[in-house]
Amino acid sequence: MTRTLLLTVASLALANCAPADTPPLASAPPPAPAASGDDKPAPDTMRWLYGSGEAAAASIQTWRHIADYAVAVSRQRKMPESVPLGLPDAEGGVGTPSCVAEDGTMKPFAAVFDVDETVLLNTGYEYWQALTGRPFDIDEWNEWANNGAGIAKPVPGAVTGLRRLREAGIAVIFNTNRNTETAAGTIAAIEAAGTGPAVHLENLFLRGDDAMGGRKDGRRARIAEDYCVIAMAGDNLGDFADVFNANEDAIAERRALAARGRYAQLWGNGWFLVPNPVYGAWQEGSVGEVFPPDARWKPSPSDAPMTMDVQ
Amino acid sequence: MTRTLLLTVASLALANCAPADTPPLASAPPPAPAASGDDKPAPDTMRWLYGSGEAAAASIQTWRHIADYAVAVSRQRKMPESVPLGLPDAEGGVGTPSCVAEDGTMKPFAAVFDVDETVLLNTGYEYWQALTGRPFDIDEWNEWANNGAGIAKPVPGAVTGLRRLREAGIAVIFNTNRNTETAAGTIAAIEAAGTGPAVHLENLFLRGDDAMGGRKDGRRARIAEDYCVIAMAGDNLGDFADVFNANEDAIAERRALAARGRYAQLWGNGWFLVPNPVYGAWQEGSVGEVFPPDARWKPSPSDAPMTMDVQ
Repeated sequence: MTRTLLLTVASLALANCAPADTPPLASAPPPAPAASGDDKPAPDTMRWLYGSGEAAAASIQTWRHIADYAVAVSRQRKMPESVPLGLPDAEGGVGTPSCVAEDGTMKPFAAVFDVDETVLLNTGYEYWQALTGRPFDIDEWNEWANNGAGIAKPVPGAVTGLRRLREAGIAVIFNTNRNTETAAGTIAAIEAAGTGPAVHLENLFLRGDDAMGGRKDGRRARIAEDYCVIAMAGDNLGDFADVFNANEDAIAERRALAARGRYAQLWGNGWFLVPNPVYGAWQEGSVGEVFPPDARWKPSPSDAPMTMDVQ
Repeated sequence: MTRTLLLTVASLALANCAPADTPPLASAPPPAPAASGDDKPAPDTMRWLYGSGEAAAASIQTWRHIADYAVAVSRQRKMPESVPLGLPDAEGGVGTPSCVAEDGTMKPFAAVFDVDETVLLNTGYEYWQALTGRPFDIDEWNEWANNGAGIAKPVPGAVTGLRRLREAGIAVIFNTNRNTETAAGTIAAIEAAGTGPAVHLENLFLRGDDAMGGRKDGRRARIAEDYCVIAMAGDNLGDFADVFNANEDAIAERRALAARGRYAQLWGNGWFLVPNPVYGAWQEGSVGEVFPPDARWKPSPSDAPMTMDVQ
């Protein structure tokens, strides 16, 4: 795409000043036509998530893990406890709400899910991005959210996993950053994929339902008022607690926060991460920020060819 | 970046036709230095796998799942059974070897693991690729395999997961496509990361240990002669059975084979996939091959700006 545009601009500019002398490019061999449209190589991130058996296997395995875990917790004889979750007023940003309602009764069990790339695959919108190379566009995204029902497929494993949860009496709650104005289209997409039902403000909460924008802690607090949340799943750390996304530029610190201490104990143990390397809050960082100094290596100089970046 | 290049080319071309005898580049402003080395943006695949809290969470969760599963199987009172695994002589490429040895005794339990991006993170070698943009180079890779000990870190969750398996009396076996000539360096790397011990041809098998090249079925058959394999884990479908990689170009068929029927029942249930979007046999396919026709979408024409690839 870039190459095609460059050549177009260059030849337009040159055409403008011919025939003063021979255009500098005239003797160059015609460029090979760049692959375009459906023939272009897909980005590796999309090859993995939308095209690979590996990603399908990973999500089937994760959804099995979620259902096995939550169904087992729901059958325990001991007093139920909420899993820790991000809350606006909790110390450190994460708390464990009571599973006993104000009237002394037990709150019903629930599992809370992100939607995009956790329950639904946005192959339709991502196809458009891959085809055109266009960056994220909120208007296009909202059109997709409104009209993608039937094209958006379930994440492999989600239909079975959600059915098992509902059969065990566990409420399925969706907490998504799709805009509240796309509620009808989002409900249609969830139900067309076999992952419904979804009812806005009952078991579906969207960005704009409160004043916290894309931060989900407020919606989590609202859900936890009515339910005993025994499992959460998402593709982004913000699906578990907003505190993880307080500083997206602090690459190493963000990873360490998730991977060490109290939070490390929760992965696969109440919190479940569905892998999505296509987009997310992690999509930041230079080579120097992603690779810590003690994890770097270079071949011995005799093996290393001269390049522009090194030596 | 695209916009900057377009403007640069346009101004170069225009400068070219103003004063006929001026050296074409002389009046152009010096180009802004491209980001290089450690300051370059890291590829999204590496940002996710090596830099994100999401990937750390996913691997911690998967390793917890592996250990929970295998320890539970090892404690069952019923007659132990092998998990299905790829074997050279099995019908359809996958079989279930007996867990009873020829002398009538029970074979000891084992779990079989790929090494790279399953047990060890190859941040050192991948840093070099990210820094230089160089494609995979077998000589550089072998140098890394020989000398990377101490730089290669464990996949988050692997140290704990492997310790739990060993404590439960389950043998840990490594089946890697590192070359057999790198055995000493690979053992050093596995042990420096806290994931050993490893002993070549006892619990470590490499490419070149037999005549099957990168296909692992022969090594799996050899392991299954001596062990009752109750769990397998890897980042590539070839870590489970060679049949998945018989035709890497058949994108949709390869995904369907892993995600449907008998194999779909194994993910998280004896077979465990550790996500790796940086490299693998899945790294094939055009936009048209990755996105099936029924998963595509475009915005309505009134919203779609004119581009060269569409309309």
